[in-house]
Amino acid sequence: MNFKEKLDAAWARSASMLMVGLDPDSLRFPAELLGRPDAIFDFCREIVDATAPYVCGFKPQIAYFSAAAAEDQLEALCRHIREYHPGLPLILDAKRGDIGSTAEQYALEAYERYGADAVTVNPYMGYDSVAPYLEWKDRGVIVLCRTSNPGGSDLQFIEDREGTPLYLRVAALVAEKWNAGGQCGLVVGATFPAEIAKVRARAGDVPLLIPGIGAQGGSVADTVRAGRDSRGTGMMINSSRAILYASAGEDWREAAAAAARDTRDAINAVP
Amino acid sequence: MNFKEKLDAAWARSASMLMVGLDPDSLRFPAELLGRPDAIFDFCREIVDATAPYVCGFKPQIAYFSAAAAEDQLEALCRHIREYHPGLPLILDAKRGDIGSTAEQYALEAYERYGADAVTVNPYMGYDSVAPYLEWKDRGVIVLCRTSNPGGSDLQFIEDREGTPLYLRVAALVAEKWNAGGQCGLVVGATFPAEIAKVRARAGDVPLLIPGIGAQGGSVADTVRAGRDSRGTGMMINSSRAILYASAGEDWREAAAAAARDTRDAINAVP
Repeated sequence: MNFKEKLDAAWARSASMLMVGLDPDSLRFPAELLGRPDAIFDFCREIVDATAPYVCGFKPQIAYFSAAAAEDQLEALCRHIREYHPGLPLILDAKRGDIGSTAEQYALEAYERYGADAVTVNPYMGYDSVAPYLEWKDRGVIVLCRTSNPGGSDLQFIEDREGTPLYLRVAALVAEKWNAGGQCGLVVGATFPAEIAKVRARAGDVPLLIPGIGAQGGSVADTVRAGRDSRGTGMMINSSRAILYASAGEDWREAAAAAARDTRDAINAVP
Repeated sequence: MNFKEKLDAAWARSASMLMVGLDPDSLRFPAELLGRPDAIFDFCREIVDATAPYVCGFKPQIAYFSAAAAEDQLEALCRHIREYHPGLPLILDAKRGDIGSTAEQYALEAYERYGADAVTVNPYMGYDSVAPYLEWKDRGVIVLCRTSNPGGSDLQFIEDREGTPLYLRVAALVAEKWNAGGQCGLVVGATFPAEIAKVRARAGDVPLLIPGIGAQGGSVADTVRAGRDSRGTGMMINSSRAILYASAGEDWREAAAAAARDTRDAINAVP
C-alpha cells in the first residue's frame, strides 16, 4: 500500500481529516512527566494513543526532538505509531531541501530511520532536490506551497510577469511535473483560506496538508470549504498545540482526546 | 567576537577563502576506518586536523550524520573543531526553514547543541522563519539565494513583474532587511558565476558561501572574479568531496591536505 492509498483508507475508516502534530515542548508537559528520562516519548505516545480514534494521521515535528537531542525518542515514537496504529499515516515534518546527493541522505533519515510514510520538503531548490524522495515509490512527499506564517508572503506572494504568485507556480510545478507518480501533497496554511481555494483549483485532487487551525488562528469552516477535493476529502488538517496542551492538569490525556474529537466533529460538521 | 568578526579574522590569518565541507559518506572511507564504531567522527576529525592550516572554516552537512543516526558523532566533531581550531568558523549546513516557534528549536539545535557559529537557512517561508536565529546576536545566518544544483532554476529564475529573478529578490531582502544586525550571508553556487556577480552587486559586502567547485564542476577563477568583495575577500568557497575523498589509499590525510592547499593556492592565484 503506498502513501496515497494509506491516506485514503485512513480518511475512510476514521471519518476524520484531523492530523495531530507532535511538537513536544517539555516546558508545557504535565507535572507527572517532569524528570522522567524519556518524558518526550512518554508524552507523545500517550497523546497518540488517546487521540488515535479521531485522526487520519500523526505529524511529528523533528525540530523539537533535535533541539532536545532526543532522536532516539523520535525513533521510539515512530516505531510505536507504526506498530500500534499501522493504519494511520506518519508524516515527518522536516521541511528539508538540498542538492540531490544530500537529499538522498535526508530521504534515508525520513523513510528508513524513522519509517515515515511521507516527509515535508521545501521547493526552493527545485526538482532535483525533491527527486531522491520520489525514488521511494511507496512514500509521499509534501511540498511547501503557501505557508501559514506571516512572513510566508515575503516570497510566496511575489508575482511573475503574468501576475501569478510564486505559491501558485509551486502548485502548478507539483501538480504537472513532480506529482507524475502520484506521490505528492502540498502544504497550504489555514490562515489563508482564499489561497487554499486557489491551490485546490490549480492542483486538482492533490492532498493538502493544512496547518494553522488552533493556536495559529485559522478558521475550520473556511478551511474545509476551501480545501475539500472532488470526493469531499483531500485534507490533512493539522492541529498541534491546541490538542497537545489542551490541559496541563491530571486530565491531560482526556483533554487531548476531547479536543481531537471536537475538532474532528467541527471539521465534519461543515456543510 | 561575533560571526562576521570571526570570519574576517580567519580570512586574514589563514590567507584562505577555502571552506571544507564535511559530508561523510562511509562508503567512500579509507579501509583502515571500516568497522570502527565512531568511523564518521574519526574520518572527519582527521580531515579537519589535516586541512586546518589551509582553510577559513568548516561546514558539516548534517544530513550525512542524521541518515546514519550519528548526531553524537556530529556533537563530538563540533566540540573538536571549537576546541582545537577555535579561530575557524563552524557552519552547520542544515538549510532549515519553518515557522517562528519551530525555528526557535532549530536555532537551539544549531547554536546550542552543536555550537555552530552560523547555520544555513532556506528563505521560502520569509522573515519570521529567520528572525529566531537572528536573536542569537553573535551568530550568523546564511540564506539560500542561488543554489548550485540544476533544479535551482525552477523557482530561483522566476522573474517578477519588473523582470527581477527570485534569487535577486532574496538577495535584496537579505541585504536591505534581514541583515540589519550584520549577521547574514548568502549561498550562491559556483556553477553560475554570472549570478554570483549579480548577487555581489546587489548585496554589497555580505559574505557569500559558494558551493559547487570541485565535484560539482564550478570554475575557481570565474568564481573568485565574480565574488570578491570591495576588500578582495568576502567568500567562503566550499569544497567537500574533492577534498574528503582525494585519495582512498593510505595517504588519504596527506591527499586531503594537499587538495586543500592546492585549492587555496588556486583561489589566491586568481589575478
